[in-house]
Amino acid sequence: MKITETTAMALATRLLIQRNALAENAKCQAGVLVEAELKGHPSHGLQRLPRILARIERGLIDPATKGEGRWRSEAVLEIDGQKGLGPVVAMAALDRLRERVSVSGIAMAAIRNNNHLGMLAHYVEHVAKDGRIGLAMSSSEALVHPFGGTRAMLGTNPIAIAVPTAGRPLVLDLATSIVSMGKIHHHAATGRPIPESWARDAEGGPTTDAASAKLGSIAPFGEAKGYGLGIAIELLVAALAGSALAPDIRGTLDAEAVCNKGDLLIVIDAMAAPTIAGRLSDYLDRVRASPPAEVDQPVGVPGDGATRRREVSLREGFDIDPALWAELNGLSLSPSPVLEGQSS
Amino acid sequence: MKITETTAMALATRLLIQRNALAENAKCQAGVLVEAELKGHPSHGLQRLPRILARIERGLIDPATKGEGRWRSEAVLEIDGQKGLGPVVAMAALDRLRERVSVSGIAMAAIRNNNHLGMLAHYVEHVAKDGRIGLAMSSSEALVHPFGGTRAMLGTNPIAIAVPTAGRPLVLDLATSIVSMGKIHHHAATGRPIPESWARDAEGGPTTDAASAKLGSIAPFGEAKGYGLGIAIELLVAALAGSALAPDIRGTLDAEAVCNKGDLLIVIDAMAAPTIAGRLSDYLDRVRASPPAEVDQPVGVPGDGATRRREVSLREGFDIDPALWAELNGLSLSPSPVLEGQSS
Repeated sequence: MKITETTAMALATRLLIQRNALAENAKCQAGVLVEAELKGHPSHGLQRLPRILARIERGLIDPATKGEGRWRSEAVLEIDGQKGLGPVVAMAALDRLRERVSVSGIAMAAIRNNNHLGMLAHYVEHVAKDGRIGLAMSSSEALVHPFGGTRAMLGTNPIAIAVPTAGRPLVLDLATSIVSMGKIHHHAATGRPIPESWARDAEGGPTTDAASAKLGSIAPFGEAKGYGLGIAIELLVAALAGSALAPDIRGTLDAEAVCNKGDLLIVIDAMAAPTIAGRLSDYLDRVRASPPAEVDQPVGVPGDGATRRREVSLREGFDIDPALWAELNGLSLSPSPVLEGQSS
Repeated sequence: MKITETTAMALATRLLIQRNALAENAKCQAGVLVEAELKGHPSHGLQRLPRILARIERGLIDPATKGEGRWRSEAVLEIDGQKGLGPVVAMAALDRLRERVSVSGIAMAAIRNNNHLGMLAHYVEHVAKDGRIGLAMSSSEALVHPFGGTRAMLGTNPIAIAVPTAGRPLVLDLATSIVSMGKIHHHAATGRPIPESWARDAEGGPTTDAASAKLGSIAPFGEAKGYGLGIAIELLVAALAGSALAPDIRGTLDAEAVCNKGDLLIVIDAMAAPTIAGRLSDYLDRVRASPPAEVDQPVGVPGDGATRRREVSLREGFDIDPALWAELNGLSLSPSPVLEGQSS
């Protein structure tokens, strides 16, 4: 079935407000999930909402806080997320960086004790709207084995980078795993095999069986290089945020544990010259116009696909699994304990 | 043949001094090249020296300058490299960041008009020796095609990251191409085919012929993700350093053009707590001890191989192509115009 952005936002926001989220915080969290749906990334969309609601009900998420910050040095902001909603704490951190970075040129927020941010693209795009460069990294539970290894020792450790241009910003958002665990679950659910390069089973052996891979570990993307990037992000986040390392991380995929991963947000306001933005978009257009390997598949630039899918979704709505939509509707509390002017 | 670090340093330094490099600058440039040899990366070693010497002789490198800096904002240093020796300008930039970063927590140098840095690992390792995190990125001439593309539009755009721990730092240094052009040249020279995933020929077609690949373009590493990282680095460097974009970059592989690529150096002095370093090295040890895919190939951590090779090279010397060693000796100018106390 298809639903519109407005309908999705209304339900997601209401479910959060019913569980004592401030209206503003509910809208921020719902916005990140719905944005992922619009861009065609349902793995980071509304399917995450039931777990978020359960975590609020169990006191693992405090939907009222924006986290507490302190400047560790002139351009580094240390944030205790106080178990807040991931996007709420992260957006508040970006707000705090905004003024400082106009003086320092580069500034960073290092966040611990915060919940899952969802798609990192969201945050760096927000920064790029100000004409600034944004970088974001997160750590996560151990799901990825080292290159040449067989046991999950690293998180999927995503990184996102947005660079503003005279046109649309370049927006990169990648997990350092070869594939998401969500995709492996999807293969398992539909009984399809997976390529042998994707994963290992619980004993560390190679497997093409998605159900076995679910219990095992995912390969890093790009062999030794992708593994290298993933482990560097693992250390950067832990060193700067003071958060746990992957084998000890909990609370990003369950509704039982306080979330102890970390996030880094870096904002750079230091373009070499005002004319650069135009040169960057001209270059990206040259890349897009360069000859493709397959005649009917033009060369893309990171963010192009998401932008296209978002435009279609805003016009026509986006697909959602009817079972998920029914589940979400069933999570509505009635009578709603906290309405705050919203209709339940 | 094998030569020792001392012998290699003496010759490389002498050749540079003979071409009017200050002794200190000659040692810095020679050190970066010899360090690459010690670590088993001859593609970034002494084979680059003849071109550097030719560039000095043609006025494309000024071996006397350290570049000129100006603080674009409180924590962003803008460097005009004044056509200096790449490592000399970069190390001077790191020196200038040192004091500022102890106050700002994070600081960046954006460098244009500078020559090739050589292995980026060198710079971030230098930063890690101070107990700080280092990141380095460079742009370079167009050698890499986009994922799904067929024409060289991106540089090999390397990134290096060092994170200090209680033991050795983690040191990542990777080009965003699937393989170096040096390796393709080596296959061509020895008449060996290359895997089809490595490169395309000058017409953009797939090829396993190394000689054809030399005239064509290299694939990005890690398919769409590695391409995404490469193009993000392309834009970050150009936006912040004010340098050219890959299709317009010259002077990293020739002895004819002024070098117009850019470099970024980021230093972070903001560990969450003094105890972090020990937790990081414990984690890396757990990764190293995790079960490998091949029993005789233990899991590695970025930088482990280079460290091992360096130890062996310091003890036993390193292999060098006798023809290259003879070529280098033949480049000695006699009588030496500037001796500065060195014997020619």
